[in-house]
Amino acid sequence: MKKSWYHLLLLLPLASLAQKDLFKYVRPIIGTEKMGHTYPGATVPFGAVQLSPETDTISYELNGKYNGKVYNYCAGYRYEDKTITGFSHTHFSGTGHSDLGDFLIMPTQGKLQLNPGTADNPLNGYRSAFSHDNELAEAGYYKVKLDDHNILAELTTSQRVGMHQYTFPKSPESHIIFDLMSGIYQYPEKNVWTYVRVVNDTLLTGYRQTNGWARTRTVYFAMSFSKPFKKYGQQNYDDKQSYRGFWRKFNQTENFPEIAGKNIRMYFDFDTDEQEKVQIKFALSPVSQKNALENMQTEIPHWDFEKVKNEAQAEWNKELNKIVINASEDDKVNFYTSMYHTFITPTIYNDVNGEYKGLGQDVHKADGFTNYTTFSLWDTYRALHPFFNLMQPSRNSDMVQSMMAHYDQSALKMLPIWSHYANDNWCMSGYHSVSVIVDAIIKGVYKGNPEEALQACISTSNHRDYEGIGYYIDNGFIPAEKSGTSISNTLEYAYDDWCIAQLAKHLNKQDVYEEYTKRSGNWQNNFDAETGFMRAKLADGTFKPNPDVMSTHGQGFIEGNSWNYSFFVPHTPELLMQKMGGKEKFAERLDKLFTMQLPDAFFSDTEDITREGIIGGYVHGNEPAHHVAYLYNTAGQPWKTQERVRMILKMQYKNAPDGLGGNDDCGQMSAWYIFSSLGFYPVAPGSVDYALGSPALKSAVLQLENGKTFTIEAKNQSDKNVYVQKVLLNGKPIKDFILRHNEIVAGGKLVFYMGPRRLNRFF
Amino acid sequence: MKKSWYHLLLLLPLASLAQKDLFKYVRPIIGTEKMGHTYPGATVPFGAVQLSPETDTISYELNGKYNGKVYNYCAGYRYEDKTITGFSHTHFSGTGHSDLGDFLIMPTQGKLQLNPGTADNPLNGYRSAFSHDNELAEAGYYKVKLDDHNILAELTTSQRVGMHQYTFPKSPESHIIFDLMSGIYQYPEKNVWTYVRVVNDTLLTGYRQTNGWARTRTVYFAMSFSKPFKKYGQQNYDDKQSYRGFWRKFNQTENFPEIAGKNIRMYFDFDTDEQEKVQIKFALSPVSQKNALENMQTEIPHWDFEKVKNEAQAEWNKELNKIVINASEDDKVNFYTSMYHTFITPTIYNDVNGEYKGLGQDVHKADGFTNYTTFSLWDTYRALHPFFNLMQPSRNSDMVQSMMAHYDQSALKMLPIWSHYANDNWCMSGYHSVSVIVDAIIKGVYKGNPEEALQACISTSNHRDYEGIGYYIDNGFIPAEKSGTSISNTLEYAYDDWCIAQLAKHLNKQDVYEEYTKRSGNWQNNFDAETGFMRAKLADGTFKPNPDVMSTHGQGFIEGNSWNYSFFVPHTPELLMQKMGGKEKFAERLDKLFTMQLPDAFFSDTEDITREGIIGGYVHGNEPAHHVAYLYNTAGQPWKTQERVRMILKMQYKNAPDGLGGNDDCGQMSAWYIFSSLGFYPVAPGSVDYALGSPALKSAVLQLENGKTFTIEAKNQSDKNVYVQKVLLNGKPIKDFILRHNEIVAGGKLVFYMGPRRLNRFF
Repeated sequence: MKKSWYHLLLLLPLASLAQKDLFKYVRPIIGTEKMGHTYPGATVPFGAVQLSPETDTISYELNGKYNGKVYNYCAGYRYEDKTITGFSHTHFSGTGHSDLGDFLIMPTQGKLQLNPGTADNPLNGYRSAFSHDNELAEAGYYKVKLDDHNILAELTTSQRVGMHQYTFPKSPESHIIFDLMSGIYQYPEKNVWTYVRVVNDTLLTGYRQTNGWARTRTVYFAMSFSKPFKKYGQQNYDDKQSYRGFWRKFNQTENFPEIAGKNIRMYFDFDTDEQEKVQIKFALSPVSQKNALENMQTEIPHWDFEKVKNEAQAEWNKELNKIVINASEDDKVNFYTSMYHTFITPTIYNDVNGEYKGLGQDVHKADGFTNYTTFSLWDTYRALHPFFNLMQPSRNSDMVQSMMAHYDQSALKMLPIWSHYANDNWCMSGYHSVSVIVDAIIKGVYKGNPEEALQACISTSNHRDYEGIGYYIDNGFIPAEKSGTSISNTLEYAYDDWCIAQLAKHLNKQDVYEEYTKRSGNWQNNFDAETGFMRAKLADGTFKPNPDVMSTHGQGFIEGNSWNYSFFVPHTPELLMQKMGGKEKFAERLDKLFTMQLPDAFFSDTEDITREGIIGGYVHGNEPAHHVAYLYNTAGQPWKTQERVRMILKMQYKNAPDGLGGNDDCGQMSAWYIFSSLGFYPVAPGSVDYALGSPALKSAVLQLENGKTFTIEAKNQSDKNVYVQKVLLNGKPIKDFILRHNEIVAGGKLVFYMGPRRLNRFF
Repeated sequence: MKKSWYHLLLLLPLASLAQKDLFKYVRPIIGTEKMGHTYPGATVPFGAVQLSPETDTISYELNGKYNGKVYNYCAGYRYEDKTITGFSHTHFSGTGHSDLGDFLIMPTQGKLQLNPGTADNPLNGYRSAFSHDNELAEAGYYKVKLDDHNILAELTTSQRVGMHQYTFPKSPESHIIFDLMSGIYQYPEKNVWTYVRVVNDTLLTGYRQTNGWARTRTVYFAMSFSKPFKKYGQQNYDDKQSYRGFWRKFNQTENFPEIAGKNIRMYFDFDTDEQEKVQIKFALSPVSQKNALENMQTEIPHWDFEKVKNEAQAEWNKELNKIVINASEDDKVNFYTSMYHTFITPTIYNDVNGEYKGLGQDVHKADGFTNYTTFSLWDTYRALHPFFNLMQPSRNSDMVQSMMAHYDQSALKMLPIWSHYANDNWCMSGYHSVSVIVDAIIKGVYKGNPEEALQACISTSNHRDYEGIGYYIDNGFIPAEKSGTSISNTLEYAYDDWCIAQLAKHLNKQDVYEEYTKRSGNWQNNFDAETGFMRAKLADGTFKPNPDVMSTHGQGFIEGNSWNYSFFVPHTPELLMQKMGGKEKFAERLDKLFTMQLPDAFFSDTEDITREGIIGGYVHGNEPAHHVAYLYNTAGQPWKTQERVRMILKMQYKNAPDGLGGNDDCGQMSAWYIFSSLGFYPVAPGSVDYALGSPALKSAVLQLENGKTFTIEAKNQSDKNVYVQKVLLNGKPIKDFILRHNEIVAGGKLVFYMGPRRLNRFF
């Protein structure tokens, strides 16, 4: 009797798996207000095209100086804004620095205007006012009414091709503006070169090269119209063109098919009938115009917008159905929107024929794997890639292979730090590729050669000229005189080195294991036993005189402060606890972190979080503390982990445009949400252990890639019953608060018994 | 008896063919002084690399305005100069506008200096003084002593790879400067992007993109050193780099292998022993770094400089031996240097694997042909391509195929006007591709599809928006109000249209033949019967009030004046003669052209010729009159053709650095020399007829590609005996002053009997 009931429960979610339209729970608008930096537009899982509205085109530079507001426009769109400038094809999801925004398209009507105009006076440019009432953002589909032009804009995509559908009013003056100057984080000289060919009256090809966050980035395109334009033209905004051949023989401003320069805007004119739809297919390629065209012809050989939309949403559905949860409607929205956000980045970076541009700017063929780009590794090594190891192992193997290809192509012989579009932008600290690679190997996910992977990790970790690594190797710490982020660098290197040691152990390389295990203890050199804080050390080996407990960005740390970073020893929290004075003191310090008051000045120093992204002194909006709530387990007070995790889930993730308390950072914030909702978290990737927390849903069925199913049930879970009373894995109790990776992938069932009692051990 | 003597004469030059070291008669220094605009450095026949010294790096722009002096540096080197700034890998030969000068390399010694310095004060930069006494320029080889650095520089090349050999003194401070900013016709913003990877301590790869005469031009390279450098560095001269990623984490100025920007100079340091040779192999590719490396590994897999030099000179020898002449030593130098200059351009433009970049910036594979670039067609259609039809038919067929590929890739559906490096620069007038194509088909040389070629010609000739073609089609002339070159455009279009008519006739397209024959008469619309001059016509159909007889560049003409252009009806000189009032008046007018005095003001208006390039009013230094001396034949006064041609040969071509009276224009001036020296000239390419002139050598044996031999003998020829008394072709007299193309390619012998008598008909 009991057994059949158990079976019934196991089968129920499975039976309904194929039918669940889970994509309907995705609200891409979440995170578009304030600091989430997500975009509301259309993309498919890990899609190479991210077709999304821009609400402004603010320059990084204003009157020759940094324009702080540009930071708000990392994803091109801000929910707070009242106008849309157009729809571009590439966007980062949730980053704190930016780039991209390639190939802005805007449909307009009436007088032709080639400048975007201003938010205050949208009628003076091609932009349009819009209302959120007339806006719909779904997984794989976006639509908005452009009020100033009386045009309905709809967007969807395939993997490498964006599809636009614009419903015009009757007009003899309908236009498609194609702005090749516009971009995200724009500044003078960012556009290096633009090249466009009008092949015929429905087809363009070309490319755009920029010198931005990615130093040498070229994106090729093919653009096809469903209806022939009656006329087209361009404006070249470059200062001087007089020396450049004898192109002046032509009137290049109208109907001239060979276009090149740095700053170009084009327009295409149409007569439209009432409610006439003009569609655009816009294909991208990292390699060539030819490949872009092939991508288009392969992926969307037709003009059926609904079909593309349905396929995009079916693709999302397939990915989202990998975890079927039972939870409140709001929680479902938060959960599946989180899943959506985790399955956006990294993005596929090869053409349908397998070609891609490598780090050295030469063309390569992805042989036996899919090549990915946009690795925001300082963020994503923590929970996103571990989440992939669980729910997207094939993709994560390919991601590691992409990182190895990057390494092979690197003249510096370094794995990616923060890479996108055949470049490393060297953003943030550590060499966290190492963590991603080791975690994938330790968990049996990576299909490539682990020996080569170890070599790449070792080579990267020994690049003495990079960010103080030489000092770190020689001294065991980085002198404060030499770096403004000396402490966080040392802490992160130490963790990464521990990962390398784990891989060495896995491969029976005892000498490497010992060397890197030793290096992994280097965090102790910045630990001041007296204050219990990580402190900056001077070249002479003494701590900097000031106590540094509030020191933050640039004072030894990056995107964090000593309060948060002092807990950053994810690989040996027990030793850290011991150094901090034992269990009680450690827990007290954690308590203080979550309850302290921060001075207002703190908020003016950061680009990445709002006041809402901070709980006491705990900064969830930035990543370095993402594991911290789980450290109460180490301190023998797991109920506080459970309480804090549930509090963070409630406070930092909301079903609202401003629902994210900090940058989503390419899915890291969302991956934290998913793990924590499910009731466990990878405190130290590179280990197979997950720390148990407090599941925030009623049940979840994980459909694993190996065909097995892992079910999580949280009995009696509620907003009050956030405390775990006991946990059974396949009927056997877990007592050490640890779930192991192989226990999940073996399939089975994990049942949490929830209640109001704060327990320090499970029964 | 007579027959055996005849045979003996025929056999003599043949027997010695294989042995003749004709490359020794080549003096690449000819034309490097004053207006020749040739370069003295090393290249192989039609070589993709032209490795040659630069004597200055003058900017097109000085204080924001055009710097007239830049024009002097079309080929990078001026014989008049006293310093050398370095050796770069791409050069035009004899052009009147410029570009290229990619990848300047300079060996130095002592204090490292990264700026080139000035001619007045070479010690303040990397440049060096040099003396012509210590300089040697041969076909395929160049050497010079760099006095300031006590370094001997030697250069040679294969097809796609330049090889440098620098003999250093003993020094702990020997340097190779690699200037990626330097270029010919440089100006701010010309350098669009530069990318360099230091692969290891002997290998670099990268590329350079410029926006110059070619608007979107990228050249990829691979650079290999024979000896590891001990240190290297770079200086980036770009204004702002602060926004561009976090590259500032690195010290990029020293030993940093990933380099990118717009304005970069690099250096490589060596310790050198006394007389130590440091060699560099520098491969180019239009497609990729990978291809450049493959080109290097395929063409020069070793470090044997002498071997490369010997092979280069053997290649030249092979080409030069196609015509073996008997003449004075000076004439041999002029003749073989002319042959050398004709066999430089167009240059091969595909990699060893067949790949090249097409007009649309995508990569193509040259399938079944060699792809060529640098088509200076306004110049070269006249005599250079006809010369190729005779002595390089396979190459010319490939050149036509390259032009057809250009057409296929052209969004404008136009054949090349003046094309180089996957671009058209639209320099000069007419659509003379048409002439080259038709001549190659009429003469049985082009192996491609003639119907497609005709379509390309028709499409090009109907591009109404280009240079008044629309007016030309509608009115039969271009209104002077609409164009500063209305007359020369109309005259050139009329000739080109006649070519199209000939091809149409050849293909039995009667309607096309008739249409284009009619168009070919349009020159008459600019002909003023009253004055006998070509005159500008206004939109209302009346001539411009001023008589225009001296009108020149911009006043209806391009690179020419009415005196010269009024004879530009190469396709129907008889009708022109008739319109000008018959034989006597026509001949008188020709006499006046050659004897008149031009006002000094004329010389200040032109960039292309010196006073020495003009005989009376006849401007040999520019091309439009190149057929004019041969028009005396039409007027029934062939002795004057003979006299003028010999005079021009003497006056305009000398064995001296300033030996060319005008720009060599990619070999057109030299092709004129060769034809005229041999005794015939293609007055109207598109016709199989050559007009007979006066051979300036004793004999010549043409080794044709079909295996046949055509021998020319000029009996009793001397400086006094410039007049032809009779001509026998294979023993039969020619009476009409016309030699036909098929008569040459059939093989045989042409004997001129020369003497002092001025005859108007042959006996």
